[in-house]
Amino acid sequence: MTQPVYDRIALIGLGLIASSMAHAIRRGNLAGEITGYARSEATRETARRINLCDRIFDTAADAVEDADLVVLCVPVGAMGPVMEEIAPKLKPGATVSDVGSVKRHVIEAVQPHIPQGVHFVPAHPLAGTEHSGPEAGFAELYDNRWCLLVPVEGTDPDAVERLRTLWEGMGANVDEMDADHHDLVLAVTSHAPHLIAYTMVGVADDLRRVTDSEVIKYSAAGFRDFTRIAASDPTMWRDVFLTNKDATLEILGRFTEELFALQRAIRTGDGEHLHDYFTRTRAIRRGIIEAGQDTAAPNFGRGTKS
Amino acid sequence: MTQPVYDRIALIGLGLIASSMAHAIRRGNLAGEITGYARSEATRETARRINLCDRIFDTAADAVEDADLVVLCVPVGAMGPVMEEIAPKLKPGATVSDVGSVKRHVIEAVQPHIPQGVHFVPAHPLAGTEHSGPEAGFAELYDNRWCLLVPVEGTDPDAVERLRTLWEGMGANVDEMDADHHDLVLAVTSHAPHLIAYTMVGVADDLRRVTDSEVIKYSAAGFRDFTRIAASDPTMWRDVFLTNKDATLEILGRFTEELFALQRAIRTGDGEHLHDYFTRTRAIRRGIIEAGQDTAAPNFGRGTKS
Repeated sequence: MTQPVYDRIALIGLGLIASSMAHAIRRGNLAGEITGYARSEATRETARRINLCDRIFDTAADAVEDADLVVLCVPVGAMGPVMEEIAPKLKPGATVSDVGSVKRHVIEAVQPHIPQGVHFVPAHPLAGTEHSGPEAGFAELYDNRWCLLVPVEGTDPDAVERLRTLWEGMGANVDEMDADHHDLVLAVTSHAPHLIAYTMVGVADDLRRVTDSEVIKYSAAGFRDFTRIAASDPTMWRDVFLTNKDATLEILGRFTEELFALQRAIRTGDGEHLHDYFTRTRAIRRGIIEAGQDTAAPNFGRGTKS
Repeated sequence: MTQPVYDRIALIGLGLIASSMAHAIRRGNLAGEITGYARSEATRETARRINLCDRIFDTAADAVEDADLVVLCVPVGAMGPVMEEIAPKLKPGATVSDVGSVKRHVIEAVQPHIPQGVHFVPAHPLAGTEHSGPEAGFAELYDNRWCLLVPVEGTDPDAVERLRTLWEGMGANVDEMDADHHDLVLAVTSHAPHLIAYTMVGVADDLRRVTDSEVIKYSAAGFRDFTRIAASDPTMWRDVFLTNKDATLEILGRFTEELFALQRAIRTGDGEHLHDYFTRTRAIRRGIIEAGQDTAAPNFGRGTKS
């Protein structure tokens, strides 16, 4: 038997990300014990019923006691208050981490509450589905996905290394990145695309001339993929946009500029402009498949009877 | 053995849609013979090598001779010229159909060339992948997908019924719709989302501060799905936007309006507006899954090692 990476891991917040961590930690035998806490009584009940963790506590402070690693898995806007609450109960030498999609804001909200002798190593696993809650998790969520560690200056390298070992044990590839750079890269690859998908789905919903049922019935590829993105957790995404405001607005500004140029090409019948643009974007897709971040299988195997 | 629906079917243009039709027609034993034509010599060679059709011809006119059904599977902008070319060779009583994503324009371009005694039944299967060409096809593409028939006024009901039987034999659900309504519904569910995805991928490509390799490497859900949409065939999509101009521009106008409202909510920190909006769009997703047009499986089963 290999040695667990941590004796006790506390998961604060028990949604998709935390519940997938619990499954992946057990799969890899990476912790001696997993404790958990969720703010909602119903979530705690569900977590107990499905035996998600070894013990579920009714307060975050109780859940983190004696933990070697505490992972904050709450919406970005709730990180600061939760950290403040658990700070007095943290074991000396423990590590606090998180899974938030925005890093600059989380560091600013959490860092001031970290007690002397406790390590803080922010992290962000780039994985998810449109489902939420403790029953949405599965052990394979992080397999072959990236987890970005965003250590603040002066962090103990051993604490970073140990967290890296945990994430690798859960199947992820691990990289390190600066907080501001992380927030810009994510604004491009995730935050702006999510806002755009939310917007398009909202437009379809508004259109009374095209009834809801038809939009749903004939949701061809395109819109269908947008609805999947736009079904993600509302609280999590509200917090992402409010806390990664500058980078998201900058990317959306660029997006609007380009969209207007393409609209003009449609209006004026400039087919060459459109064709050139679409040819260029097609090449990016090839890069992603070569980088192993998606499958080339047609339609992801959806829509087949077999 | 059931009787084939048509003795001879001619497929004009041999891309993803036509090659999937060929496989589905053979699977269902729906035609006595399939003939084919593609403009490019290389495509014809490939089609012969993989035995896609029973016979591949070097001209469209030869391919349609004696065919009971001719399906135009070329980009929307090429429908009129191809129709003009084949018109003199069409068998009396034959049916001409198409698979174009825009219907008003195709009807205007094709209808004037339909000879006396030949039926014209426009159609649009709502299915596709980001792959193109004769080797991209597979028999299951239309299974449980919609095919919309858009018959013009005065069309022989028997010709419509027979085409419906063919599409049902290929696994599709068939519905009928008016051309203008079709073009608006598709602008919402497919055309505008595609343009938006193309735009977002183009923005990412432009951003020199975020290197290409990072955008690709960390292409989280969101951007990754956009790149798949934005990898679709450039010629096909150029033609879609140029020929469904009004409906697409109308939807894009609505989209921009809504996007500006959400950007303003981000800028002013109006979390309630964002949360309400995201909660509303989430409900639409449930409708699509209930309508059987997508799977609820997490991540479509992607990204798992199993």
